[in-house]
Amino acid sequence: MVVQSSSIVAVHPLSSYSFGTKEPKLEKDTSVADRLARMRLNYMKEGMRTSVEGILLVQEHNHPHILLLQIGNTFCKLPGGRLKPGENEIEGLKRKLSSKLGANSAIQPNWQIGECVATWWRPNFETVMYPYCPPHITKPKECKKLFMVHLPEREYFAVPKNLKLLAVPLFELYDNVQRYGPVISTIPQQLSRFQFNMISQ
Amino acid sequence: MVVQSSSIVAVHPLSSYSFGTKEPKLEKDTSVADRLARMRLNYMKEGMRTSVEGILLVQEHNHPHILLLQIGNTFCKLPGGRLKPGENEIEGLKRKLSSKLGANSAIQPNWQIGECVATWWRPNFETVMYPYCPPHITKPKECKKLFMVHLPEREYFAVPKNLKLLAVPLFELYDNVQRYGPVISTIPQQLSRFQFNMISQ
Repeated sequence: MVVQSSSIVAVHPLSSYSFGTKEPKLEKDTSVADRLARMRLNYMKEGMRTSVEGILLVQEHNHPHILLLQIGNTFCKLPGGRLKPGENEIEGLKRKLSSKLGANSAIQPNWQIGECVATWWRPNFETVMYPYCPPHITKPKECKKLFMVHLPEREYFAVPKNLKLLAVPLFELYDNVQRYGPVISTIPQQLSRFQFNMISQ
Repeated sequence: MVVQSSSIVAVHPLSSYSFGTKEPKLEKDTSVADRLARMRLNYMKEGMRTSVEGILLVQEHNHPHILLLQIGNTFCKLPGGRLKPGENEIEGLKRKLSSKLGANSAIQPNWQIGECVATWWRPNFETVMYPYCPPHITKPKECKKLFMVHLPEREYFAVPKNLKLLAVPLFELYDNVQRYGPVISTIPQQLSRFQFNMISQ
């Protein structure tokens, strides 16, 4: 297999998009301990958790920015979530993106899900994840996949009232594991293979 | 553009490959300061430096390992190097891989160069690089690209006598910027999107 061309991604200005609000999407857990306990319970019922998250890019000052949802004052996450048992990854990510960012109507954005850019594994019912399934781990507890989401020229996003939608530049994420954690802070490295076509207004 | 399939990479056991030695390949510079000075000189003559490096994978205990060349007791690098002005990336990487790891003969491995997995930029004549071209940098001094190299089932490598060839597991590279630097230590994240097909002997 020889693939030599680099993928070109069109990135539109943040100002091409419009934003509104919708009713809050409350977190299912109020603490990390609660979250891990729920994960353990679901694992017993359904086996390994599979989650999918989307990387939505916009540009400002000719530099790529990623859309992140901020909960409270500090914690940021990518839009996405857990698949239902047996659900297709792409369909599940579209469902989750609509739930997090779509308007409250039957008309949802026509989400264009692109390349898988990273896969992370959770070996135990703990917060730590790795970008590979560690040796000797035969039953990982979660597999999380990050996908490129190719945004159209214009779109309307409805943001749950308890969350803030931020456009964070790659240079802010890079080497900033303290603020964004290991998954989000290495997105700049994972995107570095793409050629960005910055579209001005 | 919707690409949903994940790339599958065959990884053969380390024991499938055989290794010999050849005459030393001495480093052109004896210090970082010398290296940056030579870079500046070459930039004046030829413009931005373009370098290419190869990620060669083998497996041991069912876990992917990357082949690194060790110089002295600590410094590790990927096989590769600087392109000649106007040289094609793929052809240049094949030339560099043969120079570093090929036998001293006209018969060279049939290098299969695969996907670009990362691109790094050097904004100034300094050691620091970024996985994006930083805003306001219009004349970067170096662009370095990392490519997957798909190894055949068997191969012979000749290692220059002043270098050691190491097979380093992903779990050793991960989160180990102190030992391997920012480029090599985030290879596990960049490879996480691939599905590895571990081939036993």
